[in-house]
Amino acid sequence: MYHHVKKLMYTVRVGTADPRFGNMLLEQFGGANGELAAAMQYTVQGINCDDPARKDLLMDIGTEELSHLEVIGSLARLHLKPTKTSREAAEADPLVAIAGGGGVGLFNSMGDPWTADYLKVTGELDVDLRSNIAAEARAKIVYERLIHFCDDPGTKDALQFLMTREITHMKAFMLGLQSLGLDPLKIGHIPPTPGLVDQYFNDSTNPSENGDSDQRGPWNEGSGWSYVEAPAFQDLKKVTSK
Amino acid sequence: MYHHVKKLMYTVRVGTADPRFGNMLLEQFGGANGELAAAMQYTVQGINCDDPARKDLLMDIGTEELSHLEVIGSLARLHLKPTKTSREAAEADPLVAIAGGGGVGLFNSMGDPWTADYLKVTGELDVDLRSNIAAEARAKIVYERLIHFCDDPGTKDALQFLMTREITHMKAFMLGLQSLGLDPLKIGHIPPTPGLVDQYFNDSTNPSENGDSDQRGPWNEGSGWSYVEAPAFQDLKKVTSK
Amino acid sequence: MYHHVKKLMYTVRVGTADPRFGNMLLEQFGGANGELAAAMQYTVQGINCDDPARKDLLMDIGTEELSHLEVIGSLARLHLKPTKTSREAAEADPLVAIAGGGGVGLFNSMGDPWTADYLKVTGELDVDLRSNIAAEARAKIVYERLIHFCDDPGTKDALQFLMTREITHMKAFMLGLQSLGLDPLKIGHIPPTPGLVDQYFNDSTNPSENGDSDQRGPWNEGSGWSYVEAPAFQDLKKVTSK
Amino acid sequence: MYHHVKKLMYTVRVGTADPRFGNMLLEQFGGANGELAAAMQYTVQGINCDDPARKDLLMDIGTEELSHLEVIGSLARLHLKPTKTSREAAEADPLVAIAGGGGVGLFNSMGDPWTADYLKVTGELDVDLRSNIAAEARAKIVYERLIHFCDDPGTKDALQFLMTREITHMKAFMLGLQSLGLDPLKIGHIPPTPGLVDQYFNDSTNPSENGDSDQRGPWNEGSGWSYVEAPAFQDLKKVTSK
Amino acid sequence: MYHHVKKLMYTVRVGTADPRFGNMLLEQFGGANGELAAAMQYTVQGINCDDPARKDLLMDIGTEELSHLEVIGSLARLHLKPTKTSREAAEADPLVAIAGGGGVGLFNSMGDPWTADYLKVTGELDVDLRSNIAAEARAKIVYERLIHFCDDPGTKDALQFLMTREITHMKAFMLGLQSLGLDPLKIGHIPPTPGLVDQYFNDSTNPSENGDSDQRGPWNEGSGWSYVEAPAFQDLKKVTSK
Amino acid sequence: MYHHVKKLMYTVRVGTADPRFGNMLLEQFGGANGELAAAMQYTVQGINCDDPARKDLLMDIGTEELSHLEVIGSLARLHLKPTKTSREAAEADPLVAIAGGGGVGLFNSMGDPWTADYLKVTGELDVDLRSNIAAEARAKIVYERLIHFCDDPGTKDALQFLMTREITHMKAFMLGLQSLGLDPLKIGHIPPTPGLVDQYFNDSTNPSENGDSDQRGPWNEGSGWSYVEAPAFQDLKKVTSK
Repeated sequence: MYHHVKKLMYTVRVGTADPRFGNMLLEQFGGANGELAAAMQYTVQGINCDDPARKDLLMDIGTEELSHLEVIGSLARLHLKPTKTSREAAEADPLVAIAGGGGVGLFNSMGDPWTADYLKVTGELDVDLRSNIAAEARAKIVYERLIHFCDDPGTKDALQFLMTREITHMKAFMLGLQSLGLDPLKIGHIPPTPGLVDQYFNDSTNPSENGDSDQRGPWNEGSGWSYVEAPAFQDLKKVTSK
Repeated sequence: MYHHVKKLMYTVRVGTADPRFGNMLLEQFGGANGELAAAMQYTVQGINCDDPARKDLLMDIGTEELSHLEVIGSLARLHLKPTKTSREAAEADPLVAIAGGGGVGLFNSMGDPWTADYLKVTGELDVDLRSNIAAEARAKIVYERLIHFCDDPGTKDALQFLMTREITHMKAFMLGLQSLGLDPLKIGHIPPTPGLVDQYFNDSTNPSENGDSDQRGPWNEGSGWSYVEAPAFQDLKKVTSK
Repeated sequence: MYHHVKKLMYTVRVGTADPRFGNMLLEQFGGANGELAAAMQYTVQGINCDDPARKDLLMDIGTEELSHLEVIGSLARLHLKPTKTSREAAEADPLVAIAGGGGVGLFNSMGDPWTADYLKVTGELDVDLRSNIAAEARAKIVYERLIHFCDDPGTKDALQFLMTREITHMKAFMLGLQSLGLDPLKIGHIPPTPGLVDQYFNDSTNPSENGDSDQRGPWNEGSGWSYVEAPAFQDLKKVTSK
Repeated sequence: MYHHVKKLMYTVRVGTADPRFGNMLLEQFGGANGELAAAMQYTVQGINCDDPARKDLLMDIGTEELSHLEVIGSLARLHLKPTKTSREAAEADPLVAIAGGGGVGLFNSMGDPWTADYLKVTGELDVDLRSNIAAEARAKIVYERLIHFCDDPGTKDALQFLMTREITHMKAFMLGLQSLGLDPLKIGHIPPTPGLVDQYFNDSTNPSENGDSDQRGPWNEGSGWSYVEAPAFQDLKKVTSK
Repeated sequence: MYHHVKKLMYTVRVGTADPRFGNMLLEQFGGANGELAAAMQYTVQGINCDDPARKDLLMDIGTEELSHLEVIGSLARLHLKPTKTSREAAEADPLVAIAGGGGVGLFNSMGDPWTADYLKVTGELDVDLRSNIAAEARAKIVYERLIHFCDDPGTKDALQFLMTREITHMKAFMLGLQSLGLDPLKIGHIPPTPGLVDQYFNDSTNPSENGDSDQRGPWNEGSGWSYVEAPAFQDLKKVTSK
Repeated sequence: MYHHVKKLMYTVRVGTADPRFGNMLLEQFGGANGELAAAMQYTVQGINCDDPARKDLLMDIGTEELSHLEVIGSLARLHLKPTKTSREAAEADPLVAIAGGGGVGLFNSMGDPWTADYLKVTGELDVDLRSNIAAEARAKIVYERLIHFCDDPGTKDALQFLMTREITHMKAFMLGLQSLGLDPLKIGHIPPTPGLVDQYFNDSTNPSENGDSDQRGPWNEGSGWSYVEAPAFQDLKKVTSK
């Protein structure tokens, strides 16, 4: 038996409903890295944006994510529908079963209500674009994990579609950021304190300890770095003097 | 009169207490982009990290941010102390005044309790590093805004110190990410669907509307992009066919 | 000076920016009875709905509310923009000023993040329509209060537009509910216990107290009601026996 | 073996404890449509109410719901008690088992803490009564679903008692609203804009799409409705002109 | 002019309404240490309690706190009523003014919704009584601060009444705990590891640092304490060996 | 096979990973009574503390709890790692599996994000120490319950270590409170109303009811108590008169 839900941009097909997988799908419906989070982050950034070109970019992708919210919601609903009538299925997500009557709500897989605390909106365009690149990377890996735990071909198809679009968006946001032509380490207008900005503080481990060892790499050697040992044990006056 | 609080890594000096500014400082104490958020994001990522080199990076910076939590907390407390005794000062932050007795709590400037929903932790190292680069960019711009609204030289000094370190961390995370040697658009293991991944959907505006106009730029032209008009009005079958 | 933001369905015009009023407007952007709450409540109900006719109703109004989210967000942003540069304006909403750079976020007037806990979605169509009627009534009264505190003619015009649409939606949901042809007191399939269902318990006040007095009206006399005095002080066995 | 807990208004009898069902019962203890939500919504509305007659109504029902909180809490506790000692039972609700020692807390079935965001309190009496009618309808359907998943006769009896009272309250609130003698579409004092209020916007679907179809019914035809096609694609000036 | 609200256990009299003070009062209505928090903490502990004597204690005080919720709510409402009509008053609490129509909601002074996360309920009677002693101490100091910021004699009287009762409850819980006859350091059944339990770790400061100094007192010298320097810098194997 | 994670203060050894137990361990990582809650409560109290001796006490224990956060986090991660690859394991904690890639986050066993609402910080030293004594008692009993449900010897060793330290801290806080030399019932500066403070109100049960019975003990007889019957049914004027 096939359930069909026709969506604006994608036709969802589910073979056998799998309520525990439907519960997992809620991560991308009402979860921290899901479609509503993406849609709202970009839309609100767009409302605040004074640059008409990148505003259009933010609104295009924000609107597309809203249509994905319906796709993932319809997919989750098809998988969760048995929670309406089967006690065993209901145990996969009692909130959906008892409060939702087998229908989805804006919750994640553990029933946490969606919250605007998931969003990163600063009103500083380049900073917002960086937040969006990271957001798309997170959404991509989450879809990959869902595909990994999924057996149903129709569901996998839909997830592959949605996962692909996250890479599309990631690329668009990266190009949007590059097109601003900014130094990647220049954020805002006030420059960091010279000298201090190039000091790497080795804070987490200490010589006499036999646990994790200190590690060196491009992030703390070369590139103008000075490596400062255990700054807690020095007169930090020197560190902060200009 | 000067209030002095000696901190592990920085000596805080405040001239005149300014309760409404102290309230604003809470954004970096218990707020979404503040020091606890940074400390916890990197520490939890570090606990999950199997790569000893970048684990040390995450733990070093996570530990440094924890010491900054004390700096910003002490700074905010000095500015908020008058809320303990003055009714007018208390109106600047009634939660601090009435519930906290003039002391700080892990809240932002509007009294929202700090929540782990602020954190971005995926257990995928390159994705986490991207989230951290964005997090540092956000923290930098927030410090800049606080400096903009601040009159007290000692406070500005401390904020300049903390702001500078965010750029240090941003650079370290960028170099840590680069050192992984990954294609920036390759996240995880499952490749996106060819063809579909290069389609830019023009979703947010439509020809007949006289509002915001459609915009073109590197994020939707050139670079292999195909530009798809108003995909809601086509048979999306074609779009999703492989 | 006039700021103009062209919206999909309404052109917003603001005369003098009023940051404290902009803060109040956030109630209808990211607040409990605001446009996102309405949009999401109806859209999620629509995703769960098996009745194609009322599903279309839910989706039509859900989509309209989303366009209103942009209207109210743009309006709030124009009023809050001075928080970016003026310290006095920033005190009207420090979260917007410091974290948002003068841009709006999905918060209410007290900075509470929008949460899906605001939504009422049960997956039972007639129950959901009742929740929607109540939601529209709440949204209407909130717009009325905003108009009452507003001096700017352009802003009042926009609020009058948005307020009017809530009554439109309330009427549509009432007619949608009526068209189901259900007994208003029959919810679901299991009938209430006869006899017990008609007992009004006088719980809150007691004869010997000289405070609020007991009151009678159609809600506890006539209409088949039996009025039960202070059921806490009786053998409730009788009350619950069938 | 029978566990007995004597309650103020109802004696709870549970046969075999069923921890996963006990977890489901928490929806009506600390959940969004549960007894505390009902009790607090009506009590807070009552505190704000200037009409002594409906204030008494709100307080009577608010007080009754508080007594129901004890009934449902005692019922849930009896079903959840095995989580204190059995590892398998503990897996039904680890929060109850580990943090609560087998006792209930004000959480729903997914462990979400009860929040005042569940409440709808506007300080406008007729609006509040509408919110209450909807709240009772939701509570009724939730009890019905719990009964559907329950095998224990004593538990079913208690749930039938509680479910019945929700219909009683729904009727009382409906009669309380009717007794105000208001036009159901007149909320507050400011009238909606004539003409605009009667326009139904067909927003969610479009002619060329082969998905969900547009639907007509009493909610968008007859009754003075004018049906406006896809308002996004017109000059909305006309729509909003008076 | 005097506003009078007759309460079950206390008649509230307010002289001049002071909206910003009314906002502060919400700390004890819907705040973390307020009356609902107290009422729910003790009532839920009581529902879980198997000891009939202390269950009655918990229920007596839980019920009394509920009646105090009405007192403080009525008090706050009288002070906040001007927010309904005056724009200046509305700025004292826009959530109350716009969403609540001048009526109170279950929020604190910064608009945070009441949450069950405020409660401490473990299902272990002696532990719960300790949580209650601390809760009463917190509530007492909060009332004292409110009295400190209050000018109105009638309001001060009510706050003195409520503050006094917290000391009554603190004493009752202390005596209830004592009557259990337990060793104050014996919690539950599993004994702590001998030796390790008496080691005080000097973690926060270090010899070479010129900030806060290490301090000694009964909490780390005498009483069987062994004082362990900077355990991070030793082989902790020795510390944990038995 | 053994997984080893070297920690600053404790070496964690886990035999067989048990994902459902790993999920339970999250109560002490990101839960209400867990290590982050302890660390933050004492650290924030310490930042606010003007008494250098007890400030050092608060900072020492706050810092130790932070190191415990790493221990419990590493322990939970080892038990939860199978959720990365096994669908069955993933069902033990879908949030960890799907959003966290098998790594821990600052959530409890039901996925609730850690929140500062868990903390009790009043800025009144003796009150804060009472909150800390209660917090340590709660943490101890939670560790005991985890040990009860655990089969793995290495994990039990670590939990015994952590549980023991809670008793150490409880003792230190008790001695710190005693060393202040305060009357245990004197909180702050304003004395309670004489007479009223010694009245125990018998609120929860009534003579005519055949449920729970009224109970007497040291908490309501002797010790200067006067026992007041059902104060709701008297003229409370007398109760409150001085």
